[in-house]
Amino acid sequence: MADSTIYQASTTAPVNIAVVKYWGKRDPKQNLPTNSSISVTLSQKDLRTHTTAACSASFPKEDTLRLNSSPQDVSGARTQACFRELRALRSAVEAADHSLPKLSTLPLRIVSENNFPTAAGLASSAAGFAALVRAIANLYELPSSPTELSKIARQGSGSACRSLFGGYVAWQMGSKNDGSDSVAVEVAPASHWPTMRALILVVSAEKKGVSSTSGMQITVATSKLFKQRAEVVVPEHMELMEKAILSKDFESFATVTMMDSNSFHATCADTFPPIFYLNDVSKAAIRVVEDINKKAGKIIAAYTFDAGPNAVIYFEEENLDVVAGTLKAILGELDGWQGNQIKVQGTEGVDDRAVQTLKDGVSRVILTSVGEGPIRTEESLIQANGEPVEK
Amino acid sequence: MADSTIYQASTTAPVNIAVVKYWGKRDPKQNLPTNSSISVTLSQKDLRTHTTAACSASFPKEDTLRLNSSPQDVSGARTQACFRELRALRSAVEAADHSLPKLSTLPLRIVSENNFPTAAGLASSAAGFAALVRAIANLYELPSSPTELSKIARQGSGSACRSLFGGYVAWQMGSKNDGSDSVAVEVAPASHWPTMRALILVVSAEKKGVSSTSGMQITVATSKLFKQRAEVVVPEHMELMEKAILSKDFESFATVTMMDSNSFHATCADTFPPIFYLNDVSKAAIRVVEDINKKAGKIIAAYTFDAGPNAVIYFEEENLDVVAGTLKAILGELDGWQGNQIKVQGTEGVDDRAVQTLKDGVSRVILTSVGEGPIRTEESLIQANGEPVEK
Repeated sequence: MADSTIYQASTTAPVNIAVVKYWGKRDPKQNLPTNSSISVTLSQKDLRTHTTAACSASFPKEDTLRLNSSPQDVSGARTQACFRELRALRSAVEAADHSLPKLSTLPLRIVSENNFPTAAGLASSAAGFAALVRAIANLYELPSSPTELSKIARQGSGSACRSLFGGYVAWQMGSKNDGSDSVAVEVAPASHWPTMRALILVVSAEKKGVSSTSGMQITVATSKLFKQRAEVVVPEHMELMEKAILSKDFESFATVTMMDSNSFHATCADTFPPIFYLNDVSKAAIRVVEDINKKAGKIIAAYTFDAGPNAVIYFEEENLDVVAGTLKAILGELDGWQGNQIKVQGTEGVDDRAVQTLKDGVSRVILTSVGEGPIRTEESLIQANGEPVEK
Repeated sequence: MADSTIYQASTTAPVNIAVVKYWGKRDPKQNLPTNSSISVTLSQKDLRTHTTAACSASFPKEDTLRLNSSPQDVSGARTQACFRELRALRSAVEAADHSLPKLSTLPLRIVSENNFPTAAGLASSAAGFAALVRAIANLYELPSSPTELSKIARQGSGSACRSLFGGYVAWQMGSKNDGSDSVAVEVAPASHWPTMRALILVVSAEKKGVSSTSGMQITVATSKLFKQRAEVVVPEHMELMEKAILSKDFESFATVTMMDSNSFHATCADTFPPIFYLNDVSKAAIRVVEDINKKAGKIIAAYTFDAGPNAVIYFEEENLDVVAGTLKAILGELDGWQGNQIKVQGTEGVDDRAVQTLKDGVSRVILTSVGEGPIRTEESLIQANGEPVEK
């Protein structure tokens, strides 16, 4: 008779927003990128995926995954690669110590929940795959470092590798064909520069644009400017950004962040047919950030955009009132300002049209900050009987 | 007593819309470009500047210019360069034949009228400077070829040099420091490929964006992708475009036209701060062109955008119904369709959102075709008494 023990472990994992962008795969199967990238990990108080991984001989044979109470397809190559590689690591552990239970042979049951709307286009796959890999690694009690695990998370979703660390994280593109050197490393922990804040303006896009997975490969294939970005511009940005982070030089951090976002979206516009992730609301956000900086007489805020219209605005804690206070003057009626003491500013010096476009086009805000990497938790999403906790 | 004879000559000159774009000066003073470009000259039936140049010892000493009944400032270096160089050519003619009147010493009075709204962002400075240079060259009875005159028009407004020819025109960037080899040449006359049509969608921009003169120099100074465009992408596009025109290969003409417009706007987006000429209406026009081509199963229409949101859509006469007829189905209520027999098409297969965005954001259309270069006319804008004709 089979052992009916249910083994389980839980974690939360963060979202990260790149300041030097990942765009383009040199090997789509292994998610090996055409260039390195750097991101800031955001606080899990505001944005996180919570995942419990369980396994048991009593479970039906198929591995399963639920996200926000909906069963997900796990048959895709991405998820299968993660399961396979984690099982292989567990097998090695089991082979070295025969007293350990053979968890690698048991079906997996994964249950995940995001504390933010998946549809908002908030890099949920990065947090999702980081949490999945971290939860299974916890369940399997793997000795692997976050950098080791980043190779596995990368195969789930490229940018997920960066969500295995807190603070400021680089994904080194690597050069090997097997991907063994394409890993995430910590540039600096959150504690090194804890005053970094991020304000996300969630822009209502009527329709999902081109997915990043297909979009980036069309860029690689058709943009005549892309190679220059990957081979010349990004290496320069990587070097400047690491220095800016290590020396906590916000003006330099901000300049590279904005230039790199612009460069990435430029290669999207140069794709054939062109890909436009920024809409008129996104451009209004750029204009408002420019005007805030102009008023301040120096660069105190930086915009960046992933593969969608949402703006992420980075600034330092000391400029909370000036930066977030100006945007609260425009968007104060929206959800997302709760729990922050912000002195609302006047909007003189800020372009009127941009103000109106933001009012009309932003649906909510999220005010957050740099945060920690995955955190192990005892809060489980799977009950003692093996069933998902019902919410 | 001074001779009170009024000497005068008149011309019309066309607008041109580039299919390989001019963007960036290597010498701002002489308007020497960082790359070559190619344009299609548009018919003067729809878009032209009409200019009369006069000179007389009886005129007040200062050179003057009126455009659409408003006095213009002629003290700028651009206009002064044109006056100076044309006078120098006239001086040489006078020196060779002493019987000729000394027109080069007389004050100039220039009167110009556009047959289209100046504010619409329709490359009016190209037609304007081409007409000014051509009219004064006519007045001075200069033996100079259009290519010779193009060096002068270029100093007024870079793209004006291309408006001295009809049909398909290249502006060769040249390599000399004195600009003597930076000239316009005919790639093919309008009669070579007379079936080229152009539909302009005039997009209501609430406010003029960054001017092209300042915009392009910020791009040159800050875009890290720009050099790649100027040195690698454009030379490739120039070669492909000349071949496409000579062989009347519309699919190739259209592909390069669209890719080059995208590449140009990509370098604008990569400028710091970024320059966005395309708005959501422009992008809807791109989407509709893409959908028209998809429905046709081949490329029968090409979009291109100058430094503003207006779309110019090129297509061949044989596809008038399919291309213009689809856009007339969307924009049929606007001015600009008169005088064209077009069979309105259904819009199935065309993105609904894009259709609505065009309906909301396009203010008029201009349906025109490839056309001739400047045409000398006896119709004068200056009366026998030397005063401008009152309209």
